[in-house]
Amino acid sequence: MAAAAPPPPPTTAAEPNMDLPINHPLFTRIRLATKADVPVIHKMIYQMAVFERLADQCSATEPSLSATLFSKDNPFESFTVFLIEVSTTPFPSSSIAHHSKFTPIHKTLNLDYPISDPELEVFKSSTTEAGVVVAGFVLFFPNYSTFLAKPGFYIEDLFVRESYRRKGLGKMLLSAVARQAVAMGYGRVEWVVLDWNTNAIKFYEEMGANVMQEWRVCRLTGDALQAYATTSGTKDLDLI
Amino acid sequence: MAAAAPPPPPTTAAEPNMDLPINHPLFTRIRLATKADVPVIHKMIYQMAVFERLADQCSATEPSLSATLFSKDNPFESFTVFLIEVSTTPFPSSSIAHHSKFTPIHKTLNLDYPISDPELEVFKSSTTEAGVVVAGFVLFFPNYSTFLAKPGFYIEDLFVRESYRRKGLGKMLLSAVARQAVAMGYGRVEWVVLDWNTNAIKFYEEMGANVMQEWRVCRLTGDALQAYATTSGTKDLDLI
Repeated sequence: MAAAAPPPPPTTAAEPNMDLPINHPLFTRIRLATKADVPVIHKMIYQMAVFERLADQCSATEPSLSATLFSKDNPFESFTVFLIEVSTTPFPSSSIAHHSKFTPIHKTLNLDYPISDPELEVFKSSTTEAGVVVAGFVLFFPNYSTFLAKPGFYIEDLFVRESYRRKGLGKMLLSAVARQAVAMGYGRVEWVVLDWNTNAIKFYEEMGANVMQEWRVCRLTGDALQAYATTSGTKDLDLI
Repeated sequence: MAAAAPPPPPTTAAEPNMDLPINHPLFTRIRLATKADVPVIHKMIYQMAVFERLADQCSATEPSLSATLFSKDNPFESFTVFLIEVSTTPFPSSSIAHHSKFTPIHKTLNLDYPISDPELEVFKSSTTEAGVVVAGFVLFFPNYSTFLAKPGFYIEDLFVRESYRRKGLGKMLLSAVARQAVAMGYGRVEWVVLDWNTNAIKFYEEMGANVMQEWRVCRLTGDALQAYATTSGTKDLDLI
């Protein structure tokens, strides 16, 4: 401003009244997924594929996810899934098993309107707690930086079901992975974003992430992978 | 050309003489690295950082690499390093330990000129075989595709020492990772490339890789990671 404005008159800031009733509380909990959660994870992966218009590329099945995602009981050392679950009533205090490396994260949201979820029955929690529904997930696994000589986490998927979007649940899942990385002394959390998704890029930059413009992901898959894998055998070949 | 030229006169193509002596053979071997190889791996990581003009970002030390890279003896399930070693005489037939999931890959190159390596002494193999020198490495680890419900491999670093470049050693390392992925039933091999590195992009596309133009890598690290990890605690917060 060009000239200094007079100081504003003193205001009497209203003290937040902690006793105010919460009209539409949504209790949330982030916990480690287990093999028992594969059916809901599979449904969410398929919904994500439909959202991205890539359903034809999605060949995951419940058995294939079970065999590859939860074959080893070593969360954080391999592929790991956090689920975010919601309930309109508080979670029981000790309803799920404790894990030495992770304590479930609880948070209560105060919503202006109740959520209408047409798929309540389909996404019931495997914990069998009454009224607890799975609202989203994040799948991540360790990666490694040679320059830092430290592991990090790579986030492969982050998904929040349609009924629960724009309420901060995605940020809570992302933040849970960042907290876990820091707790384990890891150096980075990485993921990818589509370059035309300007809202997402803005969101990531505001949270302090560096969106690297110069790097391109290269992928060798399908027939090309099979073919390339056989270009150099154990016997002598010409110079390549 | 504007008009059709007459066909060239028939030529008598010289049959390649398979009995011709190899003037400058270079015997190569790809093997799994172990903790004993950390000193040479550390030197190569630093050379790579200098080459990329990122030496100021390279804080890796021999102890930090030892502690994080080879803390668990589970190659292919976590961070894995293949070394490519070279020798001007054949490798002894059983000089290194066998691993149930990987057999070392041997190949003999026929070079027009001998290689002059000013750092022969510094890069001697930890196997103590006479005349065996480490020429490069590839560091990779599992990643996961939810759509395929299959693991893959992500290549974090691929490096060939200057004296050994443009002889196909990088391709041999890349191919070894692709072979391992196929052998384990994995669905993909991925890595990143700088968008201005047109020679590398051409090379990757010729090998059948898809260079994905729309995706951008996001990275949360350092102070921003620490700060973000604490934005959502276990106590109730405002809606985010």
